[in-house]
Amino acid sequence: LDNIVRRELWEEWRAEAFKRFKEDILIGYADEDIVDLIEEVFRSPHCFTTSSCSGRITAIDAPYPWLREGSEVLFKKHSPMTPDELATLINTPVLTRLWIVVSGPILHVVTDSVDEALKLLKTVRAEGFKHSGVISMSSSGVVVEVISGVWLSLLIRDRNALLIKTSSLTYLNNLINQALGDAKKRLARLKKLFFEKRVCWN
Amino acid sequence: LDNIVRRELWEEWRAEAFKRFKEDILIGYADEDIVDLIEEVFRSPHCFTTSSCSGRITAIDAPYPWLREGSEVLFKKHSPMTPDELATLINTPVLTRLWIVVSGPILHVVTDSVDEALKLLKTVRAEGFKHSGVISMSSSGVVVEVISGVWLSLLIRDRNALLIKTSSLTYLNNLINQALGDAKKRLARLKKLFFEKRVCWN
Repeated sequence: LDNIVRRELWEEWRAEAFKRFKEDILIGYADEDIVDLIEEVFRSPHCFTTSSCSGRITAIDAPYPWLREGSEVLFKKHSPMTPDELATLINTPVLTRLWIVVSGPILHVVTDSVDEALKLLKTVRAEGFKHSGVISMSSSGVVVEVISGVWLSLLIRDRNALLIKTSSLTYLNNLINQALGDAKKRLARLKKLFFEKRVCWN
Repeated sequence: LDNIVRRELWEEWRAEAFKRFKEDILIGYADEDIVDLIEEVFRSPHCFTTSSCSGRITAIDAPYPWLREGSEVLFKKHSPMTPDELATLINTPVLTRLWIVVSGPILHVVTDSVDEALKLLKTVRAEGFKHSGVISMSSSGVVVEVISGVWLSLLIRDRNALLIKTSSLTYLNNLINQALGDAKKRLARLKKLFFEKRVCWN
C-alpha cells in the first residue's frame, strides 16, 4: 500500500507529542501505570502515542454516562477506590444522575505508515482489543485507537434519592475494584505486546 | 491513496452479504428499524453493510457487562421495554450478575476503496459517531465500524439478591426507554447521512 505519511511531518508531530508527555510527567498529570508503556512506544521506530489511559474509575453527574457535554466529573482515579471514597461520593448532591464508570486502557498510537497501522490493528484485535480501529489518516500519521470492551456504568443516585440499597455498598465497592483489576490485566497484555512481542518494531 | 481493494472480490462479498440480509428478513430475524437504511446502503455504488443494530436493550447474566464468553443473554429487544417485561426480568434467577444494557446503533460498512472509507469515517465522526474506526482492510474491502458512545449498563441483581431498590423500578424502566430513545435519535442522524447527505454516493 502506498504510504501517505510524510516522514518529516510525522517526526514533527512525534516531537510535539513527546514534549507534551514530558510536561505531563513534570506537573504530575501523568497516569503512572502507563508511563513505562508510553516511553517504550516512543522508543520504537514506527510509532508514538498522543493520548492514553491505564484504566480508571470516574464518577460523573450526567443524564447518561456517555455524555461529555453537560456532565461534570466528580471523581477520577487510576487505582482502587476506598470504602471512604465511595461513602463520600454517594452522598454528593447531583443535578442529574450520579454514575460511576469503570473503563479499560486506551492508547492512541500514531504510526508512520498505513501498513504499520494495519499490522498493529490486526495484532491488538487478536489480543482482545476488539474495539480498536484506525480513527484518522493524514500526511502527519495514521492514528490507531487501541481499546478493549472493558467498560461499565453503575447508576448510584438521581437528584432526589439513592437508587441502590445501602446494604449493597460493600458489594459495589468490590465490584468496582474487581472491574478495575480486570482493566489493569488488559493493560498488562498491552504492555506484553509492546515490550515482549515488540509490535511497532517490525 | 492506492487502492488495495479488488473490485471483483468486493462485489463477490457484497452479493454474499446481500443474500444473507434477504434471508434474515425472510426468517424474521432482521432488526426492523434499520432495514430501510441497509437497503439504501446496498443501493450505493461504493458501500454495503455486513452487520448492523438499530439500538437495543439486552439483559445478560455475566460477571461483567462487556463479557461475551461465559455470559447468557436473557432478553433482547429493539423497542421499548414494558413494565411487565422488567418485572419478570428482575425476578429471573442468575448464576452471576444480571445486567441490563442499552446500546446505540452500529453499522459495519464495507467500502470499495481506502479513500471512500476515510471520507465516510470523517463524516460520521463529525456527526457524533466518535467511536467509529476502520477495523480491517483487505483486497475484498475496507470495513468501517460506525458507532456512537451511546451505551450504558445497569446492575440489577447478583445470584442472591436484588441490588436496586424495588421502589426505583419505574424510574429505571423510564431511564432504559429514554436511553433507547436517544439511541434511536442517533439512528435517525445516521439515516439522514445516507438518505439526504448521500454519503457513499460521492
